Amino acid sequence: MIRYKITVEYDGRTFCGWQVQKNTTSVQGVLEQAASTLNGRDTRVFGSGRTDAGVHADGQVAHVDIRDEIKKHQIADALNHHLRPHPVVVLAAEPVKDNFEARFHARKRLYRYVIINRRARLTTKVGLAWQFPELLNSGLMEQASKYLLGNHDFTTFRDTECQAKSPIRTLDTLKINQNDDQIIIRCSAQSFLHKQVRSIVGSLVEIGRKHRPVEWLKEILDARDRKRCGPVAPPDGLYLERVDY
Amino acid sequence: MIRYKITVEYDGRTFCGWQVQKNTTSVQGVLEQAASTLNGRDTRVFGSGRTDAGVHADGQVAHVDIRDEIKKHQIADALNHHLRPHPVVVLAAEPVKDNFEARFHARKRLYRYVIINRRARLTTKVGLAWQFPELLNSGLMEQASKYLLGNHDFTTFRDTECQAKSPIRTLDTLKINQNDDQIIIRCSAQSFLHKQVRSIVGSLVEIGRKHRPVEWLKEILDARDRKRCGPVAPPDGLYLERVDY
Repeated sequence: MIRYKITVEYDGRTFCGWQVQKNTTSVQGVLEQAASTLNGRDTRVFGSGRTDAGVHADGQVAHVDIRDEIKKHQIADALNHHLRPHPVVVLAAEPVKDNFEARFHARKRLYRYVIINRRARLTTKVGLAWQFPELLNSGLMEQASKYLLGNHDFTTFRDTECQAKSPIRTLDTLKINQNDDQIIIRCSAQSFLHKQVRSIVGSLVEIGRKHRPVEWLKEILDARDRKRCGPVAPPDGLYLERVDY
Repeated sequence: MIRYKITVEYDGRTFCGWQVQKNTTSVQGVLEQAASTLNGRDTRVFGSGRTDAGVHADGQVAHVDIRDEIKKHQIADALNHHLRPHPVVVLAAEPVKDNFEARFHARKRLYRYVIINRRARLTTKVGLAWQFPELLNSGLMEQASKYLLGNHDFTTFRDTECQAKSPIRTLDTLKINQNDDQIIIRCSAQSFLHKQVRSIVGSLVEIGRKHRPVEWLKEILDARDRKRCGPVAPPDGLYLERVDY
């Protein structure tokens, strides 16, 4: 068997999330089915991390062991063939050392969150962005975002069911760009807590719509209290864009 | 009645195209239904031009007459309410002079065509872009595009069923930008022939994939012969982005 690092794109709309669950369709599940068919035996696929139901990926990374007989340059096409008709594709597959672990060796994860700030419903982007009807001031969101950069206890911004041992994380970047009615929030860290990005986005939106002042973000961060978090943003706008090793 | 200029966004995937046709769902048809409900009587909606089945719009423009009693700032919301659940929304509605004609007064139409140049199928963008599997050289496409700028007889690039009296058009801009595996082609003109953009894109792709040299585009333009056109690009990647007045 040869270990491959695969880069995976998927549309989260039809999945229960990344992780295999009984009686429902997961991204990991359809990838494992495809890899098992290709190998002719049960095969597991290990991701860099889970994404929740409805969350998308342009560049999720996983590792999987594939039979030696299959040529390296055919792995992606072969997996994609077996992944039909699910909205999951392998964009790249490269052989790596036997001890490569997609989850534990990741140095940086980069997420993108897309808000469409307008009153009208979405058409082409239904389920692919968060349509927010009240006018947002992205400049205020940008100002508030600075409080979150660096090493903090992110208890306020983690799901109550988060299984991580520590609530301490280091947020390396948190950038907000507006282009017409589209507001894109990009953030990176070595690792994230459960629902951390959506909790941060939801809280920034409270400031953008002027329900809260800029300083409120520092207040709720310092409170280390999940109950102080803003409403969690929906999964629709969230994309796992890249994982660096 | 007050005449309104409305800016309309739609997802072309589920429509037979812009124009009303019997026994099928058109964008114009669902807009006319919404406007008729709002007015309480049969109402027509006139677009700046037709788009074919599967073609999208971020900024189609149309005009429609609405009852005086309905407040100006409520028109868009009211139409959007009646447009549910169709993937069509009114982004803006502004009162205009009674003699405003969305089709005849348009000074410039701007289309965008999106190609995703990669081997893997699409996931989030199924039906929203043209996935082209062979490597394209967008630099060559850019070079060839210069031949089409300006005033020409576009017979080669018009559908055999095009109803325009003249095949002469003036192409004001034709720009090609590549960002990773995404190639975006933008073009503008006062008006376009039927399937002109998709015919141009399909021919440029023949050059990008090196099936034809750059000069071939001038050759087929000069030939004024529909049979010399490259394979017409699919509707999936085409967006009517803006109409200027």
